[in-house]
Amino acid sequence: MELNNFKGVIAAVLTPTINLREKMAETADFLLKRGVEGMFVLGTMGEGAKLGREKRAEVAEAAVETAGSKMLVIVHVGASDLDTVLWLTRHASRIGAHAVSAVAPFYYRYDTESLIKFYQKISDESSVPVLVYNNPGRQGYPIPAESLAKILETVYPPPGLKESSGDTDLLLQLFQKFGKERFLAAGGDHIMAYSFIMGYRRHVSAIASLYPEIASGMYRNVLNGNIEEALRLQQIFNKVRDAVKKVGPDTAAPRYVLKLRGLDVGEPIPPTRPLSPQETETLAKLLPTEQQIT
Amino acid sequence: MELNNFKGVIAAVLTPTINLREKMAETADFLLKRGVEGMFVLGTMGEGAKLGREKRAEVAEAAVETAGSKMLVIVHVGASDLDTVLWLTRHASRIGAHAVSAVAPFYYRYDTESLIKFYQKISDESSVPVLVYNNPGRQGYPIPAESLAKILETVYPPPGLKESSGDTDLLLQLFQKFGKERFLAAGGDHIMAYSFIMGYRRHVSAIASLYPEIASGMYRNVLNGNIEEALRLQQIFNKVRDAVKKVGPDTAAPRYVLKLRGLDVGEPIPPTRPLSPQETETLAKLLPTEQQIT
Amino acid sequence: MELNNFKGVIAAVLTPTINLREKMAETADFLLKRGVEGMFVLGTMGEGAKLGREKRAEVAEAAVETAGSKMLVIVHVGASDLDTVLWLTRHASRIGAHAVSAVAPFYYRYDTESLIKFYQKISDESSVPVLVYNNPGRQGYPIPAESLAKILETVYPPPGLKESSGDTDLLLQLFQKFGKERFLAAGGDHIMAYSFIMGYRRHVSAIASLYPEIASGMYRNVLNGNIEEALRLQQIFNKVRDAVKKVGPDTAAPRYVLKLRGLDVGEPIPPTRPLSPQETETLAKLLPTEQQIT
Amino acid sequence: MELNNFKGVIAAVLTPTINLREKMAETADFLLKRGVEGMFVLGTMGEGAKLGREKRAEVAEAAVETAGSKMLVIVHVGASDLDTVLWLTRHASRIGAHAVSAVAPFYYRYDTESLIKFYQKISDESSVPVLVYNNPGRQGYPIPAESLAKILETVYPPPGLKESSGDTDLLLQLFQKFGKERFLAAGGDHIMAYSFIMGYRRHVSAIASLYPEIASGMYRNVLNGNIEEALRLQQIFNKVRDAVKKVGPDTAAPRYVLKLRGLDVGEPIPPTRPLSPQETETLAKLLPTEQQIT
Repeated sequence: MELNNFKGVIAAVLTPTINLREKMAETADFLLKRGVEGMFVLGTMGEGAKLGREKRAEVAEAAVETAGSKMLVIVHVGASDLDTVLWLTRHASRIGAHAVSAVAPFYYRYDTESLIKFYQKISDESSVPVLVYNNPGRQGYPIPAESLAKILETVYPPPGLKESSGDTDLLLQLFQKFGKERFLAAGGDHIMAYSFIMGYRRHVSAIASLYPEIASGMYRNVLNGNIEEALRLQQIFNKVRDAVKKVGPDTAAPRYVLKLRGLDVGEPIPPTRPLSPQETETLAKLLPTEQQIT
Repeated sequence: MELNNFKGVIAAVLTPTINLREKMAETADFLLKRGVEGMFVLGTMGEGAKLGREKRAEVAEAAVETAGSKMLVIVHVGASDLDTVLWLTRHASRIGAHAVSAVAPFYYRYDTESLIKFYQKISDESSVPVLVYNNPGRQGYPIPAESLAKILETVYPPPGLKESSGDTDLLLQLFQKFGKERFLAAGGDHIMAYSFIMGYRRHVSAIASLYPEIASGMYRNVLNGNIEEALRLQQIFNKVRDAVKKVGPDTAAPRYVLKLRGLDVGEPIPPTRPLSPQETETLAKLLPTEQQIT
Repeated sequence: MELNNFKGVIAAVLTPTINLREKMAETADFLLKRGVEGMFVLGTMGEGAKLGREKRAEVAEAAVETAGSKMLVIVHVGASDLDTVLWLTRHASRIGAHAVSAVAPFYYRYDTESLIKFYQKISDESSVPVLVYNNPGRQGYPIPAESLAKILETVYPPPGLKESSGDTDLLLQLFQKFGKERFLAAGGDHIMAYSFIMGYRRHVSAIASLYPEIASGMYRNVLNGNIEEALRLQQIFNKVRDAVKKVGPDTAAPRYVLKLRGLDVGEPIPPTRPLSPQETETLAKLLPTEQQIT
Repeated sequence: MELNNFKGVIAAVLTPTINLREKMAETADFLLKRGVEGMFVLGTMGEGAKLGREKRAEVAEAAVETAGSKMLVIVHVGASDLDTVLWLTRHASRIGAHAVSAVAPFYYRYDTESLIKFYQKISDESSVPVLVYNNPGRQGYPIPAESLAKILETVYPPPGLKESSGDTDLLLQLFQKFGKERFLAAGGDHIMAYSFIMGYRRHVSAIASLYPEIASGMYRNVLNGNIEEALRLQQIFNKVRDAVKKVGPDTAAPRYVLKLRGLDVGEPIPPTRPLSPQETETLAKLLPTEQQIT
């Protein structure tokens, strides 16, 4: 699988906490059957930042080995420290991930020049394509449009981008500037349809790991010019997004939704507690019906 | 050195990036000569979150071995993942740190129950005292007063606290509730004098690593009932704090200030860039004169 | 002009501070010649909240009398106090505005029940259609989707809505729920094209008062199915929006842009200072060229 | 009563919505009996921004006429528009308020130069002393320390200041710079004791209108060097502050608390709804006992 040839939805998958390989293989099947042919492993949805590097390596291997021949597998290698980022980059390169991506370093704030250094170091250590990843809500600071452009233009070899700021102006600008030559993936579940309308042909999506058929439906409908149906699906997608945000601590609700849909990948990674029985009940009521989906 | 017997200022020290052991020993001397008898290693000021675990271990060892017999040494073991936190906790216990502290886990948000699990795991692995550490600006979410109280009351053995939210109500409440029995350290350079006025007898301070004599002066003056002088020193402290915040990227300015004061601990930890010549000039002008300090 | 029959762009016009009637008539011409057939008077762009009620009344009259026979004229009557809001509502009704709209009351925060009271009082006093107006950045608090829906469903007679939160999920939801039966106007210059793509057929826009031809072009292109061209125009629109936000104090830059385009409506309403010569120079460079527009 | 001679607590009083004059007189008595000798009328606590100018004038008159001979009466004249601000300033001057104060203009953001114009216009129209008033949470933007200093140094005649940002650094700086020559009042209920410790001798306080005896107790205890008792009272004050913030919509809870304490000043000013029976019950439980107060 060539990164640059890939088009479509990339699901930011949950990290199984039981039967890792088996569950990762099931995850791939779950996605493929519903029209999603890419996965983003160990990102925010995958709780990568909650695992030590050895466990992250183990998860990346499980993904590449069970799914890598059937679909695109991007490994998230971001961490607060560059040592870990580079360690994980080397590992993902060695096992043959299709690409690596690192969220801008968190805990501290970094300026353009420092971020260029950050992504250059990754590129120097990586033997697979690298994706810059902008997620202000997680990294803790915004990266202005001009800075992002400068990073993309300076780092060598030319990196791709996962843009998850949710800022539609920024998405438009970046697409105009880099859309033809670079691997650009939009992020932000609530603007998936709009990103496809803008011309983006890849979207990394957390909710796609729970309802892949809605995500692939949005993509297909935009391609076919059926924008009205794409926006209908977007609303159902938004409903799921709101539901998992509203109930329980960060990262706990999605696992329960996926279990309801037939795929149990285990409890949240500690120290996050699982949902209480009352929370699961609330959550279940907020989800769309199967009828709404199709 | 018994943690609970310690009273006074604890400087959150910079991590030397050159001649580690030698510079760490010089750091201890620099502090002790200016009346500061505690150090907090690898915290936010120490850029702990920017280093891989092996390097953090090395820095902790350098601190304990060169300074641990002369002053209090608390090792910060916080990270976004529990695996690393526990690895560092075991290490710091083994080398004989006087205590360990971990900022509430960052990148994701955690609720009270999950935070109790987090600190209990640390306590289970640690053979030295543990300090809960609340720093909303860094961890990315607030911990309400009742949650903090519940964590302190539930985790066993009873942990201490480093409270760096800057919320003076919270400081007052916690002091009333836990001030007699627990090791409580205030944080927040701009409220150092006020925390001593409230009754706190320990303060972990970043600026104290640059101007230890101002910090120890504030402490001494409050103890002696000379509040007016303590508040005069507080203002000079605030001036330094504003200056290092205003100039350059996170973590770069303090190193330059310390160099100006005669102690060169090297450039910032990558990927943060060092200050530009123009920035160093601007910074130098914002600092207090030696005359103002004394 | 029947409010409900109106479709297209509604420009949030600047309030002339020189030759009121003459300049208001010129404003209408400026818009009509460039394909914009609606104006929103005394809103955020019009600095309504900076004028005493008598001056607001005078401006509203100038608008209705010089433009009301040629285009849609909506008068903004929002204020921090209900007394002024009702006084202005009665006045606008009397002079025959096509509709009135009031931003949710600002300075304090209000809950759903209080907001229902607010809009009901306005509706009771108005003899023209009323538009609820949600602008969290200005009113100072968000109104959740369910609250907005409840307000729209409870107030009688059924009000219209100007939705300027910039939240695309909210826009989608509201359109699905109320799009067929109510007068719904989207707001937020940066999501104009997308709102038309969603199905909205009215958009109240500040930048449309400066570059009406871009706004009407976006509308026309979406209607004609030429989304690519609409998004190209959106980017130029965004560029103008960024420029006027970046330069000088709130409300000063737009007047200068309009002057550059041939329509001088005077200096900002005091106490806001006008742009400095250097600021005007900076601003001019940030604007699109005439060639880009067409 | 000379403004500059006044020292002590100034209660930001509620605006009676029943029996205006009688209730205003009772308010004055309630305060004076409990050691508070100043009132700030029609401020944030007094819901000034929710009333039309004629009603504000009526309330100001009631305050000056029933309380002005017995205590300090400062009239808040702030509004989003300068026309109303100046109208109210002239009125308050005419009726003999001891001073007027206007929060920095809200709804839009203003820079230093514009704010100087704003306060100069007020000073030009006022025949009584003017207080600049900084309340970032209400005006919607911060005013940096240097800007505040420049405003105080430029406007003529030299104005006083009500500083309610809650920023203790700013309070310290301003006191050092202007404390000797100007009328400086701190604001922010949660830092009342600390402001007195800093040297401030006036504090405008919302909670003081509900529990004046706690506020006057804090002042007296700091003056007498009994800081520990002052801080004990501060905590009870904080408890009340938290309680009224937590329950019901803005401005509704304080009225109920005052009613519980024996002074009924009527329901909130519309459109704010009164507390529900359940909310009153919750609120009552959060308040300190009479025993704790004394």
